[in-house]
Order: sequence, then C-alpha cells, then structure tokens
Amino acid sequence: MTDLSAGAAWMAGRILPIAEAKIGVTDWALTHSDTVYDVVPVVGGAFFRLPDYLARFRASVQAGRFEIGMEDAEIAAALSSMVAASGLRDAYCAMVAARGTPRVPGDRDPRNCRNHFYAWAVPYVHVIKPEVIAAGASVWIAKMVRRIPPDSVNPRAKNYHWGDFTAGLFEAKEAGFETVLLCDHAGHVAEGPGFNAFAVIGDRVVTPETGVLEGITRRTVLEICAELGLATEIRPLPLEEFMAADEVFLSSSGGGVLPITRVDDRIFGNGVAGPVARQLHARYWDWTRRPEHRTPVPYPG
Amino acid sequence: MTDLSAGAAWMAGRILPIAEAKIGVTDWALTHSDTVYDVVPVVGGAFFRLPDYLARFRASVQAGRFEIGMEDAEIAAALSSMVAASGLRDAYCAMVAARGTPRVPGDRDPRNCRNHFYAWAVPYVHVIKPEVIAAGASVWIAKMVRRIPPDSVNPRAKNYHWGDFTAGLFEAKEAGFETVLLCDHAGHVAEGPGFNAFAVIGDRVVTPETGVLEGITRRTVLEICAELGLATEIRPLPLEEFMAADEVFLSSSGGGVLPITRVDDRIFGNGVAGPVARQLHARYWDWTRRPEHRTPVPYPG
Repeated sequence: MTDLSAGAAWMAGRILPIAEAKIGVTDWALTHSDTVYDVVPVVGGAFFRLPDYLARFRASVQAGRFEIGMEDAEIAAALSSMVAASGLRDAYCAMVAARGTPRVPGDRDPRNCRNHFYAWAVPYVHVIKPEVIAAGASVWIAKMVRRIPPDSVNPRAKNYHWGDFTAGLFEAKEAGFETVLLCDHAGHVAEGPGFNAFAVIGDRVVTPETGVLEGITRRTVLEICAELGLATEIRPLPLEEFMAADEVFLSSSGGGVLPITRVDDRIFGNGVAGPVARQLHARYWDWTRRPEHRTPVPYPG
Repeated sequence: MTDLSAGAAWMAGRILPIAEAKIGVTDWALTHSDTVYDVVPVVGGAFFRLPDYLARFRASVQAGRFEIGMEDAEIAAALSSMVAASGLRDAYCAMVAARGTPRVPGDRDPRNCRNHFYAWAVPYVHVIKPEVIAAGASVWIAKMVRRIPPDSVNPRAKNYHWGDFTAGLFEAKEAGFETVLLCDHAGHVAEGPGFNAFAVIGDRVVTPETGVLEGITRRTVLEICAELGLATEIRPLPLEEFMAADEVFLSSSGGGVLPITRVDDRIFGNGVAGPVARQLHARYWDWTRRPEHRTPVPYPG
C-alpha cells in the first residue's frame, strides 16, 4: 500500500501520492496561470457543502471556457475516491481545471488547447493557525498594492492570480503581521489571500460586494447570520469604515470564521475576539457537523 | 541518446526531454502563479542579446524576492548546455524562478518557501506566424478586459499573470482576429500577450511608457530607430491616437518586429505593411546576425 497520508492526487483517473502529482512546465496552467480551481474542506470525515463547492467550480469552469469532460457527479466521485484512499479525516481538497497545451505546438489560440482536470488533497490547512487566532490575530492593510480589478481578471472565476496577494504578504510579514488584506482602486476593502472580510458595525454584519470571490464560507456566514437574527449588508466597504468597526473578522474554508484583534495599529475589542465573531466561529463548526451539509467520505474498511 | 528535438529542460542540474519536465501541483509557482521568468531567443545557433535577457531576469528575480542560488554565469551555462543538448538552432528558451513550497506544510509566509530555478527550450515560437504577417496581420482591441494595473501586479517583473490576455485572446479569436491588444484603465494602449506595441505617427515612432513590460525587443527597436535616425517617443499612447497612426506594429522576442495591417475595423496602409515597420523588421533580423549581439551555443561535435 502506498502511503498517502501526506496527501493524494487524482490525475487522469489515477490516484497517486501528492509528491508525484505534477504538471508539465509548458502547460498554460503554469505559463499563463490559465486555470480555475476550487477547494472544498473535509471536516471530520465528510465534505462540507460539497454540492455548493461543485456548483461554484462549474461556474468558474464555464466563465473560463474550460472543457474538462467531466460532470459534477464524476468530479464528486474522483474527490471521494481520492480522499478515501488518503485516509485523511480533515483535509483541504482542491479541484483544478487547466488549459493544458495546444494540439499544434506554437498555436496561441486558447480554444485549441487540450484542457484537463486534476484534484489533490492534503491535511487540512488553516489560513491562520488556531493558536494564533486564540492569541489574537493581526491583519496588515496592504500599502503598496491594490487588488487586481474585476475588469482585468474576474475574481468570481476562482483563480491562481495571486501576485497582488503575495506582494501584500511580503509587506505584512515584514511588518510583523499575520496576514494581509487588500483594498481595491477605490479604497474599499476587497479581500485577502484565501479569505473574505467582514466588519460588525453597530447591529449590522457587513461584507464587501464587488471585486471579491463569492466565498462559500462567506455565504455560510451570511446564512448563519440569518439563522441568528443578525442583520447583514453586502455593499462597498470603505477602509475608513472598516477601521472604525466594532469587530472585524475573516471567512475562509481554511478555518471558517477568523476573529481579528488588530488591523495596522488599531486594536479591536481590547485585543480579544468580539462576541459576534466568537458566536459565528462556533456556529460555523456546528454547521460542519450538521448532516444536511455533509457528504461522508467512503473510507475503506 | 535521448531525442530532445521537441524541446529540452534543465531542472536541478539535469537535462531532460521537455515532456518529462514537470513541477508539483502544490508548488506556489502554480497555486499562486508565484514565478518570474524570461525568454531569450536562439537564432541561427546563437542566443541573441543573452546578457540583456539575463540582466532583466535578475531584475525580475530581485523584484519578486526569489532566492535561486545561481549567478548569471551559472544560468548562462545551464541554458547553453540545455540548448546545445537539444540541437535546436532556432529556439524559444525560457528561464523561470519559482516560489516552490513552504518548508513547513501549511505555512503561508512566502519568505519560508524553497525557491527553485528551472529552464526549458522548444523550437522557436512566433507570436504571429510569418505567413500571417506576410498576408497582413490583424489585432483586436480588447473590449471586455483591461490590462492588470501596475499597482496590482508589477509588469516589469516578467510574470505569468495572463488572465487578462487570455480573456482578450478569446475575444479576438471569436471576432476572427489574429491577436489582441489591451488598454489600461485610462484608455491608453498597454500591451498584448507576449508583445509590446508601437505606432508610427508622422516622423515619430511611439511606444507606451507605463504599465508594460520593458521588452528587450522593444529596446532593440528603439536602438534600431536611433541607428536609422528615426525619432522615438516613450509616453502614454491614447487608443484614439494609436488608431489614427500612419503605421502600427508589435515587437516580441517571438518574431521580432511584427507589422500590423488591421486593428478592429481600421485598415492600415491599404492592408500592406508600412515602410517603417518593414525597415525595422529587416533590420531586427540583421541585428540578430551581428556578432556583438550573439552568444554562440556550444553544440556538440
């Protein structure tokens, strides 16, 4: 038996160790960052909201005009068999559509490439480690870089264009902060590397409307707010308003709801996670245990 | 002997067939498009302007904060041995710095990744095929997409963030055009997938100043203009002015100087390449034969 505990991949119908899962250096997935992807979390042995992640991946595939030749049920089967083989009970499970290479070498027409699908799973990834969250997590507002605008690269087709995030992460890490949040060119809060942002302003939970990925965890947060009777607003969120909020937090499939206690030099809640973020954090993990949101992984034996 | 005529790669000191050159699916080169690269042409058995391409690659590597552990001379030796082994006399030779993966799985700090360098060469690629250029090449001005702005991703650190170009290429190909040119958010001409743009306006040769890669071929064109006594201007180039120019052409290491005879519904020069573009096109190939610009490839035997 191959050891897949470090991670597994599904490529062209084969399941292989993550370290052996590779793509060619001339694949446009690499040379043009010409991919769309999605990541569904596996929590306690089950996919969380798998149909929603599959639907969003399908929308990205269509927006990016990829032909991957697989229906949602086939993708679900590939992911299930891969995670089952890995034995991972808590995993970060990525599905990717890649442009591939042109049928005729040197052709520059994206319509003439052999597109392909692959997937991989590794042990669950936290965007911010739980012990950092517990101690109070800090966010840097990027000063040197703005989020790639939606009329340059469509943020709703989930993509690997992370150059702005990476530049922002360098800024944040050099300044001693945990992660980074980018603004758009109008000075509104946009998103960060792998997460959406929220502000609690009075009795409202506010999250940016445009120029961001419509995160499934973001949607879960909005739905949990409805369940808890918290009012929500999806609208442009100026940085000044964000900085003056009562609480701020992030949402990510890599950790759920992430309370933030410091943004630049502003301390929120005396350095302790606020009551709304704490409530949403707990309720998110509660939701991951609800049967109606779970697709159990068919582990062997 | 392995057949390397389809292309060769250099990875960690080994030369291998291009089809076997692969990188891991979790490398940030792929999942964050976290690379910088450069491409030096090989023309008639010699690299063209190799020191200039190496210098630009080094500048990109530094701007992107990659630690590849190789001096320029070592990179030159890797490229030379790889192209020599391939036997290719005319080649497109890429060098890439990749972020790699974090030393500790799950770490999100770009400073903690194992960066790496690799290179590959394939038979020479023309951005627009010579027979298309001869018949009169057409360019579509992207309508739905704007070039990623320089304060989101630095275009002078040559990178694989091509989502805007790819969306533009889909537009262009659907409209029956050969390639696409993108404008910036101010409505100025920026660049296209793999090339810079020029306009001949009266007795001036004009090329955009900001938001573009400072192409080595662009520089060659400007230097050839000086040699020919043609005045040049590097400045913002509004689309309206570009469309009203006497001639327009593109520059790329994948083909040199590429005369354009149609942009959207505007025909230039009655559909025939203009005199300035034709002169620059010929002189470019003349320059590639000048010994001072050539670094001969040490082919065996």
